[in-house]
Amino acid sequence: MIVAEFSAIPMGTGTSASKYVLAIYEILRESGVTFVPGPMSTAIETNSFEQLFNVIEKANKKLAEMGVQRIITTIHIDYRLDKDISIESKLHKSIEK
Amino acid sequence: MIVAEFSAIPMGTGTSASKYVLAIYEILRESGVTFVPGPMSTAIETNSFEQLFNVIEKANKKLAEMGVQRIITTIHIDYRLDKDISIESKLHKSIEK
Amino acid sequence: MIVAEFSAIPMGTGTSASKYVLAIYEILRESGVTFVPGPMSTAIETNSFEQLFNVIEKANKKLAEMGVQRIITTIHIDYRLDKDISIESKLHKSIEK
Amino acid sequence: MIVAEFSAIPMGTGTSASKYVLAIYEILRESGVTFVPGPMSTAIETNSFEQLFNVIEKANKKLAEMGVQRIITTIHIDYRLDKDISIESKLHKSIEK
Repeated sequence: MIVAEFSAIPMGTGTSASKYVLAIYEILRESGVTFVPGPMSTAIETNSFEQLFNVIEKANKKLAEMGVQRIITTIHIDYRLDKDISIESKLHKSIEK
Repeated sequence: MIVAEFSAIPMGTGTSASKYVLAIYEILRESGVTFVPGPMSTAIETNSFEQLFNVIEKANKKLAEMGVQRIITTIHIDYRLDKDISIESKLHKSIEK
Repeated sequence: MIVAEFSAIPMGTGTSASKYVLAIYEILRESGVTFVPGPMSTAIETNSFEQLFNVIEKANKKLAEMGVQRIITTIHIDYRLDKDISIESKLHKSIEK
Repeated sequence: MIVAEFSAIPMGTGTSASKYVLAIYEILRESGVTFVPGPMSTAIETNSFEQLFNVIEKANKKLAEMGVQRIITTIHIDYRLDKDISIESKLHKSIEK
Protein backbone atom coordinates (compact mmCIF):
# COMPACT_ATOMS: atom_id res chain seq x y z
CA MET A 1 0.00 0.00 0.00
CA ILE A 2 1.17 3.51 -0.73
CA VAL A 3 0.32 6.25 1.76
CA ALA A 4 0.44 9.83 0.54
CA GLU A 5 -0.90 13.26 1.27
CA PHE A 6 -1.64 16.00 -1.17
CA SER A 7 -3.12 19.45 -1.51
CA ALA A 8 -4.17 21.42 -4.57
CA ILE A 9 -4.05 25.21 -4.26
CA PRO A 10 -6.14 27.18 -6.75
CA MET A 11 -4.59 30.49 -7.84
CA GLY A 12 -6.58 33.40 -9.17
CA THR A 13 -9.92 32.43 -7.62
CA GLY A 14 -10.10 34.28 -4.32
CA THR A 15 -8.79 33.37 -0.90
CA SER A 16 -11.30 30.62 -0.16
CA ALA A 17 -10.67 27.14 -1.48
CA SER A 18 -13.44 25.18 0.22
CA LYS A 19 -15.60 24.49 -2.82
CA TYR A 20 -12.57 23.07 -4.61
CA VAL A 21 -11.60 20.97 -1.62
CA LEU A 22 -15.12 19.53 -1.51
CA ALA A 23 -14.99 18.74 -5.23
CA ILE A 24 -11.75 16.84 -4.67
CA TYR A 25 -13.30 14.84 -1.83
CA GLU A 26 -16.07 13.91 -4.25
CA ILE A 27 -13.49 12.58 -6.70
CA LEU A 28 -11.76 10.64 -3.95
CA ARG A 29 -15.08 9.10 -2.91
CA GLU A 30 -15.92 8.10 -6.48
CA SER A 31 -12.47 6.57 -6.89
CA GLY A 32 -13.03 4.28 -3.93
CA VAL A 33 -9.70 5.07 -2.28
CA THR A 34 -9.36 5.47 1.48
CA PHE A 35 -8.72 9.08 2.41
CA VAL A 36 -8.62 11.25 5.52
CA PRO A 37 -9.22 15.01 5.26
CA GLY A 38 -6.75 17.16 7.21
CA PRO A 39 -6.52 20.89 7.85
CA MET A 40 -3.68 21.41 5.37
CA SER A 41 -3.84 18.37 3.08
CA THR A 42 -5.64 15.12 2.45
CA ALA A 43 -4.13 11.76 3.35
CA ILE A 44 -4.78 9.00 0.84
CA GLU A 45 -4.01 5.31 0.63
CA THR A 46 -3.72 3.53 -2.70
CA ASN A 47 -2.68 0.16 -4.08
CA SER A 48 -0.26 1.60 -6.59
CA PHE A 49 1.44 4.71 -7.88
CA GLU A 50 -0.89 4.51 -10.85
CA GLN A 51 -4.00 4.74 -8.69
CA LEU A 52 -2.54 7.60 -6.67
CA PHE A 53 -1.52 9.60 -9.72
CA ASN A 54 -4.79 8.90 -11.48
CA VAL A 55 -6.72 10.47 -8.61
CA ILE A 56 -4.45 13.50 -8.48
CA GLU A 57 -4.72 14.09 -12.21
CA LYS A 58 -8.52 13.82 -11.95
CA ALA A 59 -8.52 16.35 -9.10
CA ASN A 60 -6.55 18.81 -11.24
CA LYS A 61 -8.80 18.29 -14.27
CA LYS A 62 -11.89 18.79 -12.08
CA LEU A 63 -10.62 22.12 -10.75
CA ALA A 64 -9.79 23.18 -14.31
CA GLU A 65 -13.37 22.31 -15.35
CA MET A 66 -14.61 24.47 -12.50
CA GLY A 67 -12.71 27.38 -14.01
CA VAL A 68 -9.45 27.43 -12.06
CA GLN A 69 -6.70 28.69 -14.35
CA ARG A 70 -3.70 27.71 -12.26
CA ILE A 71 -3.30 24.93 -9.72
CA ILE A 72 -0.30 24.22 -7.50
CA THR A 73 -0.35 20.62 -6.30
CA THR A 74 1.87 19.31 -3.52
CA ILE A 75 2.25 15.57 -2.97
CA HIS A 76 4.19 13.59 -0.35
CA ILE A 77 4.46 9.87 -0.94
CA ASP A 78 5.60 7.18 1.47
CA TYR A 79 6.65 4.14 -0.55
CA ARG A 80 7.78 1.45 1.81
CA LEU A 81 9.02 -1.98 0.85
CA ASP A 82 10.09 -3.55 4.12
CA LYS A 83 6.57 -3.71 5.55
CA ASP A 84 2.99 -3.09 4.62
CA ILE A 85 1.68 0.33 5.60
CA SER A 86 -1.71 1.99 5.67
CA ILE A 87 -3.10 5.28 6.96
CA GLU A 88 -4.34 3.42 10.01
CA SER A 89 -1.07 1.64 10.76
CA LYS A 90 0.87 4.89 10.42
CA LEU A 91 -1.46 6.79 12.72
CA HIS A 92 -1.75 3.99 15.23
CA LYS A 93 1.97 3.56 15.50
CA SER A 94 2.76 7.18 16.07
CA ILE A 95 -0.05 7.91 18.49
CA GLU A 96 -0.52 4.91 20.71
CA LYS A 97 2.88 3.39 21.11
CA MET B 1 -3.65 32.13 14.01
CA ILE B 2 -1.26 30.34 11.70
CA VAL B 3 -2.09 26.80 10.64
CA ALA B 4 0.75 24.65 9.35
CA GLU B 5 1.78 21.07 8.86
CA PHE B 6 5.26 19.66 8.99
CA SER B 7 7.23 16.45 8.92
CA ALA B 8 10.83 15.71 9.81
CA ILE B 9 12.45 12.77 8.03
CA PRO B 10 15.54 11.28 9.66
CA MET B 11 18.13 9.99 7.19
CA GLY B 12 20.69 7.36 8.05
CA THR B 13 18.81 5.81 10.96
CA GLY B 14 16.86 2.92 9.48
CA THR B 15 13.47 2.80 7.83
CA SER B 16 11.40 3.34 10.96
CA ALA B 17 10.85 6.86 12.22
CA SER B 18 8.36 6.24 15.01
CA LYS B 19 10.59 7.00 17.97
CA TYR B 20 11.52 10.32 16.42
CA VAL B 21 7.91 11.14 15.67
CA LEU B 22 7.01 10.44 19.31
CA ALA B 23 9.85 12.68 20.50
CA ILE B 24 8.50 15.49 18.34
CA TYR B 25 4.99 15.05 19.79
CA GLU B 26 6.57 15.40 23.23
CA ILE B 27 8.11 18.72 22.18
CA LEU B 28 4.80 19.90 20.78
CA ARG B 29 3.06 18.99 24.05
CA GLU B 30 5.65 20.83 26.13
CA SER B 31 5.34 23.86 23.86
CA GLY B 32 1.62 24.06 24.55
CA VAL B 33 0.64 24.43 20.88
CA THR B 34 -2.43 22.73 19.45
CA PHE B 35 -1.43 19.90 17.12
CA VAL B 36 -3.06 16.99 15.31
CA PRO B 37 -0.99 13.95 14.32
CA GLY B 38 -1.54 12.73 10.77
CA PRO B 39 -0.26 9.72 8.83
CA MET B 40 2.21 11.77 6.79
CA SER B 41 2.69 14.97 8.79
CA THR B 42 1.58 16.82 11.91
CA ALA B 43 -0.84 19.74 11.77
CA ILE B 44 -0.04 22.58 14.15
CA GLU B 45 -1.66 25.85 15.10
CA THR B 46 0.34 28.75 16.47
CA ASN B 47 -0.09 32.42 17.35
CA SER B 48 2.85 33.57 15.30
CA PHE B 49 5.54 32.59 12.84
CA GLU B 50 7.98 32.85 15.72
CA GLN B 51 6.15 30.23 17.77
CA LEU B 52 5.86 27.92 14.77
CA PHE B 53 9.51 28.19 13.83
CA ASN B 54 10.62 27.85 17.44
CA VAL B 55 8.87 24.49 17.70
CA ILE B 56 10.30 23.26 14.41
CA GLU B 57 13.83 24.24 15.37
CA LYS B 58 13.40 22.45 18.71
CA ALA B 59 12.17 19.34 16.89
CA ASN B 60 15.29 19.34 14.71
CA LYS B 61 17.60 19.90 17.67
CA LYS B 62 15.89 17.08 19.58
CA LEU B 63 16.42 14.61 16.72
CA ALA B 64 20.03 15.72 16.48
CA GLU B 65 20.45 15.05 20.24
CA MET B 66 19.00 11.58 19.64
CA GLY B 67 21.81 10.96 17.18
CA VAL B 68 20.20 11.69 13.82
CA GLN B 69 22.88 13.06 11.48
CA ARG B 70 20.63 14.41 8.74
CA ILE B 71 17.06 15.65 8.91
CA ILE B 72 14.84 16.75 6.03
CA THR B 73 12.01 18.94 7.29
CA THR B 74 9.00 19.88 5.17
CA ILE B 75 6.68 22.67 6.28
CA HIS B 76 3.47 24.04 4.74
CA ILE B 77 2.14 27.25 6.23
CA ASP B 78 -1.27 28.82 5.74
CA TYR B 79 -1.00 32.50 6.64
CA ARG B 80 -4.36 34.13 6.16
CA LEU B 81 -5.18 37.76 6.80
CA ASP B 82 -8.80 38.08 5.67
CA LYS B 83 -10.20 35.87 8.41
CA ASP B 84 -9.15 34.02 11.51
CA ILE B 85 -8.35 30.35 10.95
CA SER B 86 -7.64 27.38 13.18
CA ILE B 87 -7.16 23.66 12.66
CA GLU B 88 -10.77 23.17 13.73
CA SER B 89 -12.23 25.84 11.43
CA LYS B 90 -10.27 24.47 8.49
CA LEU B 91 -11.39 20.90 9.11
CA HIS B 92 -14.99 21.85 9.88
CA LYS B 93 -15.31 23.90 6.75
CA SER B 94 -14.02 21.29 4.42
CA ILE B 95 -15.80 18.31 5.93
CA GLU B 96 -19.24 19.40 7.01
CA LYS B 97 -20.33 22.01 4.53
CA MET C 1 3.46 22.10 -20.51
CA ILE C 2 3.58 21.10 -16.88
CA VAL C 3 6.44 22.34 -14.73
CA ALA C 4 7.17 20.46 -11.53
CA GLU C 5 9.91 19.80 -9.04
CA PHE C 6 10.47 16.70 -7.02
CA SER C 7 12.83 15.01 -4.62
CA ALA C 8 13.07 11.42 -3.44
CA ILE C 9 14.58 10.85 -0.01
CA PRO C 10 15.90 7.36 0.72
CA MET C 11 15.44 6.24 4.32
CA GLY C 12 17.56 3.60 5.98
CA THR C 13 20.57 3.90 3.67
CA GLY C 14 22.88 6.35 5.39
CA THR C 15 23.05 10.12 5.28
CA SER C 16 24.35 10.44 1.72
CA ALA C 17 21.89 10.33 -1.15
CA SER C 18 24.13 11.21 -4.06
CA LYS C 19 24.23 7.84 -5.79
CA TYR C 20 20.45 7.74 -5.76
CA VAL C 21 20.19 11.26 -7.06
CA LEU C 22 22.52 10.34 -9.94
CA ALA C 23 20.43 7.27 -10.74
CA ILE C 24 17.34 9.46 -10.94
CA TYR C 25 19.10 11.87 -13.34
CA GLU C 26 19.89 8.86 -15.50
CA ILE C 27 16.19 7.98 -15.61
CA LEU C 28 15.27 11.56 -16.46
CA ARG C 29 17.81 11.55 -19.29
CA GLU C 30 16.51 8.28 -20.69
CA SER C 31 12.96 9.59 -20.52
CA GLY C 32 13.85 12.56 -22.70
CA VAL C 33 12.23 15.13 -20.43
CA THR C 34 13.80 18.53 -19.79
CA PHE C 35 15.10 18.78 -16.24
CA VAL C 36 17.26 21.06 -14.14
CA PRO C 37 19.07 19.72 -11.06
CA GLY C 38 18.79 21.92 -7.96
CA PRO C 39 20.35 21.71 -4.50
CA MET C 40 17.15 20.48 -2.85
CA SER C 41 15.06 19.08 -5.72
CA THR C 42 14.97 18.60 -9.47
CA ALA C 43 12.86 20.76 -11.75
CA ILE C 44 11.19 18.92 -14.61
CA GLU C 45 9.05 19.89 -17.56
CA THR C 46 6.63 17.44 -19.15
CA ASN C 47 3.86 17.39 -21.73
CA SER C 48 1.34 15.76 -19.46
CA PHE C 49 0.59 14.55 -15.96
CA GLU C 50 1.05 11.04 -17.30
CA GLN C 51 4.62 11.70 -18.42
CA LEU C 52 5.46 13.39 -15.13
CA PHE C 53 4.04 10.61 -13.00
CA ASN C 54 5.61 7.94 -15.17
CA VAL C 55 9.06 9.37 -14.53
CA ILE C 56 8.47 9.67 -10.79
CA GLU C 57 7.25 6.10 -10.53
CA LYS C 58 10.31 4.92 -12.48
CA ALA C 59 12.56 6.87 -10.10
CA ASN C 60 10.96 5.15 -7.11
CA LYS C 61 11.22 1.72 -8.70
CA LYS C 62 14.87 2.34 -9.56
CA LEU C 63 15.74 3.24 -5.96
CA ALA C 64 13.86 0.15 -4.78
CA GLU C 65 15.94 -1.96 -7.21
CA MET C 66 19.07 -0.39 -5.72
CA GLY C 67 17.97 -1.71 -2.34
CA VAL C 68 16.26 1.28 -0.75
CA GLN C 69 13.50 0.02 1.54
CA ARG C 70 11.65 3.28 2.08
CA ILE C 71 11.41 6.35 -0.13
CA ILE C 72 9.71 9.64 0.67
CA THR C 73 8.91 11.55 -2.52
CA THR C 74 7.86 15.19 -2.57
CA ILE C 75 6.36 16.69 -5.73
CA HIS C 76 5.22 20.24 -6.51
CA ILE C 77 3.29 20.69 -9.73
CA ASP C 78 2.43 23.93 -11.53
CA TYR C 79 -0.52 23.24 -13.84
CA ARG C 80 -1.42 26.41 -15.64
CA LEU C 81 -4.18 26.81 -18.17
CA ASP C 82 -4.16 30.52 -18.97
CA LYS C 83 -0.75 30.48 -20.63
CA ASP C 84 1.96 28.13 -21.75
CA ILE C 85 4.78 27.70 -19.24
CA SER C 86 8.18 26.05 -19.29
CA ILE C 87 11.15 25.90 -16.94
CA GLU C 88 12.79 28.58 -19.05
CA SER C 89 9.80 30.92 -19.12
CA LYS C 90 9.35 30.60 -15.38
CA LEU C 91 13.01 31.31 -14.64
CA HIS C 92 13.26 34.11 -17.18
CA LYS C 93 10.22 35.88 -15.87
CA SER C 94 11.25 35.84 -12.26
CA ILE C 95 14.88 36.75 -12.79
CA GLU C 96 15.06 39.26 -15.58
CA LYS C 97 11.90 41.27 -15.42
CA MET D 1 25.17 25.69 7.04
CA ILE D 2 21.52 24.98 6.44
CA VAL D 3 20.33 24.55 2.86
CA ALA D 4 16.63 25.00 2.18
CA GLU D 5 14.21 25.80 -0.58
CA PHE D 6 10.92 27.59 -0.28
CA SER D 7 8.06 29.03 -2.25
CA ALA D 8 5.26 31.39 -1.25
CA ILE D 9 2.02 31.11 -3.21
CA PRO D 10 -0.31 34.11 -3.08
CA MET D 11 -4.01 33.21 -3.16
CA GLY D 12 -6.71 35.58 -4.30
CA THR D 13 -4.48 37.80 -6.43
CA GLY D 14 -4.70 36.39 -9.94
CA THR D 15 -2.75 33.65 -11.64
CA SER D 16 0.53 35.54 -11.97
CA ALA D 17 2.91 35.61 -9.04
CA SER D 18 5.93 37.29 -10.61
CA LYS D 19 5.75 40.62 -8.81
CA TYR D 20 5.60 38.82 -5.49
CA VAL D 21 8.50 36.57 -6.42
CA LEU D 22 10.57 39.63 -7.30
CA ALA D 23 9.68 41.26 -3.98
CA ILE D 24 10.90 38.16 -2.17
CA TYR D 25 14.20 38.20 -4.08
CA GLU D 26 14.62 41.79 -2.93
CA ILE D 27 14.19 40.68 0.68
CA LEU D 28 16.68 37.87 0.18
CA ARG D 29 19.20 40.31 -1.28
CA GLU D 30 18.77 42.75 1.60
CA SER D 31 19.18 39.90 4.08
CA GLY D 32 22.55 39.01 2.62
CA VAL D 33 21.83 35.29 2.37
CA THR D 34 23.00 33.22 -0.59
CA PHE D 35 20.06 32.19 -2.75
CA VAL D 36 19.41 30.63 -6.15
CA PRO D 37 16.11 31.26 -7.96
CA GLY D 38 14.51 28.15 -9.45
CA PRO D 39 11.43 27.62 -11.62
CA MET D 40 9.32 26.28 -8.75
CA SER D 41 11.07 27.52 -5.62
CA THR D 42 14.09 29.42 -4.35
CA ALA D 43 17.10 27.68 -2.84
CA ILE D 44 18.62 29.45 0.14
CA GLU D 45 21.63 28.91 2.38
CA THR D 46 21.74 30.24 5.92
CA ASN D 47 23.91 29.99 9.03
CA SER D 48 21.07 29.03 11.31
CA PHE D 49 17.41 28.11 11.54
CA GLU D 50 16.85 31.56 12.98
CA GLN D 51 18.23 33.30 9.90
CA LEU D 52 16.22 31.04 7.59
CA PHE D 53 12.96 31.56 9.43
CA ASN D 54 13.55 35.28 9.78
CA VAL D 55 13.80 35.63 6.01
CA ILE D 56 10.68 33.53 5.42
CA GLU D 57 8.66 35.52 7.92
CA LYS D 58 9.82 38.75 6.26
CA ALA D 59 8.78 37.39 2.86
CA ASN D 60 5.29 36.65 4.18
CA LYS D 61 4.97 40.06 5.83
CA LYS D 62 6.11 41.74 2.63
CA LEU D 63 3.46 39.98 0.55
CA ALA D 64 0.85 40.90 3.17
CA GLU D 65 1.95 44.57 2.89
CA MET D 66 1.50 44.29 -0.88
CA GLY D 67 -2.11 43.31 -0.26
CA VAL D 68 -2.03 39.52 -0.45
CA GLN D 69 -4.70 38.15 1.88
CA ARG D 70 -3.60 34.53 1.97
CA ILE D 71 -0.16 33.01 1.46
CA ILE D 72 0.75 29.33 1.33
CA THR D 73 4.44 28.83 2.07
CA THR D 74 6.27 25.58 1.46
CA ILE D 75 9.72 25.01 2.96
CA HIS D 76 12.14 22.09 2.67
CA ILE D 77 15.12 22.14 4.99
CA ASP D 78 18.25 20.02 4.84
CA TYR D 79 19.85 20.06 8.28
CA ARG D 80 22.96 17.96 8.21
CA LEU D 81 25.31 17.35 11.08
CA ASP D 82 27.83 14.88 9.72
CA LYS D 83 29.35 17.31 7.23
CA ASP D 84 29.19 20.91 6.16
CA ILE D 85 26.87 21.58 3.23
CA SER D 86 26.16 24.53 0.97
CA ILE D 87 24.09 25.13 -2.15
CA GLU D 88 27.29 24.78 -4.16
CA SER D 89 28.45 21.56 -2.53
CA LYS D 90 25.02 20.00 -2.99
CA LEU D 91 24.82 20.96 -6.65
CA HIS D 92 28.41 20.05 -7.37
CA LYS D 93 28.08 16.65 -5.82
CA SER D 94 24.97 15.67 -7.67
CA ILE D 95 25.97 17.02 -11.07
CA GLU D 96 29.62 16.39 -11.57
CA LYS D 97 30.42 13.26 -9.69
